[in-house]
Amino acid sequence: MHTDLVAALDIGGTKIAGALVDGHGTIVARAQRATPAREDGETVMRAVEEVVGELTASPLWGDATALGIGSAGPVDASAGTVSPVNVPGWRDFPLVRRVREAAGGLPVELIGDGVAITAAEHWQGAARGHDNALCMVVSTGVGGGLVLNGRLHPGPTGNAGHIGHISVDLDGDACPCGSRGCVERVASGPNIARRALENGWRPGPDGDTSAAAVAAAAQDGDPVAMASFERAAQALAAGIAATATLVEIDIAVIGGGVGKAGDILFTPLRKALHDYATLSFVQRLTITPAQMGTDAGLVGAAAAALARKADPTAAGV
Amino acid sequence: MHTDLVAALDIGGTKIAGALVDGHGTIVARAQRATPAREDGETVMRAVEEVVGELTASPLWGDATALGIGSAGPVDASAGTVSPVNVPGWRDFPLVRRVREAAGGLPVELIGDGVAITAAEHWQGAARGHDNALCMVVSTGVGGGLVLNGRLHPGPTGNAGHIGHISVDLDGDACPCGSRGCVERVASGPNIARRALENGWRPGPDGDTSAAAVAAAAQDGDPVAMASFERAAQALAAGIAATATLVEIDIAVIGGGVGKAGDILFTPLRKALHDYATLSFVQRLTITPAQMGTDAGLVGAAAAALARKADPTAAGV
Repeated sequence: MHTDLVAALDIGGTKIAGALVDGHGTIVARAQRATPAREDGETVMRAVEEVVGELTASPLWGDATALGIGSAGPVDASAGTVSPVNVPGWRDFPLVRRVREAAGGLPVELIGDGVAITAAEHWQGAARGHDNALCMVVSTGVGGGLVLNGRLHPGPTGNAGHIGHISVDLDGDACPCGSRGCVERVASGPNIARRALENGWRPGPDGDTSAAAVAAAAQDGDPVAMASFERAAQALAAGIAATATLVEIDIAVIGGGVGKAGDILFTPLRKALHDYATLSFVQRLTITPAQMGTDAGLVGAAAAALARKADPTAAGV
Repeated sequence: MHTDLVAALDIGGTKIAGALVDGHGTIVARAQRATPAREDGETVMRAVEEVVGELTASPLWGDATALGIGSAGPVDASAGTVSPVNVPGWRDFPLVRRVREAAGGLPVELIGDGVAITAAEHWQGAARGHDNALCMVVSTGVGGGLVLNGRLHPGPTGNAGHIGHISVDLDGDACPCGSRGCVERVASGPNIARRALENGWRPGPDGDTSAAAVAAAAQDGDPVAMASFERAAQALAAGIAATATLVEIDIAVIGGGVGKAGDILFTPLRKALHDYATLSFVQRLTITPAQMGTDAGLVGAAAAALARKADPTAAGV
């Protein structure tokens, strides 16, 4: 028998993944469906129920004592609902109640996907052993989460650490969120590519205009491609420095597709951080790549469920 | 006998205030000296010792069980040292050890002055009953502190909530801290006055070029004076929205001299907050004036000492 077995769901705009996870963070059973993101809310929920159904059919299911959900946001953990931007059929959808019903009444813990990634990096990855950390995903969007005083800080609604939508350029370009100059508006993969194209970068014969293609061009010394990554690094640095100045963190972990650009991102990022993280108590902040892979969302959702079991009054891990 | 009596020190560039504070936040004894801010470190420390000496001479002193210090920053609570910008004789000065010696060995809790103000507003003032709050002082500088999950969040070094030095304008004017476009660089009293003067506002016959004089002109409808407050409000709104997006707060409390401008500040501030606080989980955030007066620093330092007594493992109130 697994004494610390929990179930986990990772719900995004592309796939709905489920797992049973043991107390060491090892996945011992899996299930997955594509997200029918364009369909109505009940159709999306049926895909979730199929994933949960596969897990409940596992011979290990009887040992599971809680279920954690990491979901695309915004989420509202206090109401138990989700309204993922890229799943229009779910608006204030009562996901916690519905999953609890599908899971035979297990206690359910809901957090945002950035918070889930953070829980995973803190439990098993690059933030392990750090009591105060910011973990980020820089990809199609920019998300994140916080560990404060040794514990996950999801906030009352499970959305804390939403660094992609803090403004670092108050007169800057309008962001789809309604604000201006958000970190995501400058530093996400699509915005890195857009800026490079606007400033004259041209893709190779394959026509690839992704941020990865811009990173490859920057690696080959293309100045426009490099400048677009430097601008993204500047916005990320201002956001990370703001976070450190507000809550005191000693490490920032960066994952996601843009994070895979390696030195093309991290070299200008560390340089820019020096410019913005100026107060004595934030100068020792280090930046490091994420260590968790594609299972980070599942492992983090499991971490949240385990922490809830250990301390039912806690706000998080 | 007072069962919850603690001692408190509020150390700034102008004065060093001390008090004995009971469990209801009432000040039952006081002492004060001017800060000899231009003198060497030992001379400044002697003024602190005189304040502590007056408190120890009180007939109530025997009931005091802890001592809290709120100090101008930066502070380093983990090392027990302070390096206040406006007290050049103190750099990494071992204030905690020296005060403990002067106070007969009482346990000493050190926090930054913005954190102390926050503890006071949470205990007795405008943030009472709020589990997640940002409290700010907008004055010669811009400082602040955070309450998260119902408790003060000083951070490992006691400096968390330093909203004055987060950048909201990454290409903006250079800030004395070394960064650019900090909230303080746009929204402090001296910067409100400077911007008004640069844009053509002229003081009255008394030659008063303070932010209070700019506020009075704005009240009379002077468009340049109004615009300078509107720009300050915009920077404050971007900083408050960033804080709410990062850690989830439901109230922002604003005190300090600039906060006294009333609607001249709060009307454009609430309007600008609507522009920057766009995500669903931050839209219910309210902004309100501070309630604590000039004793906020002392009452907050006492709150930190009381919380430390109640939970010696805690990072704060």
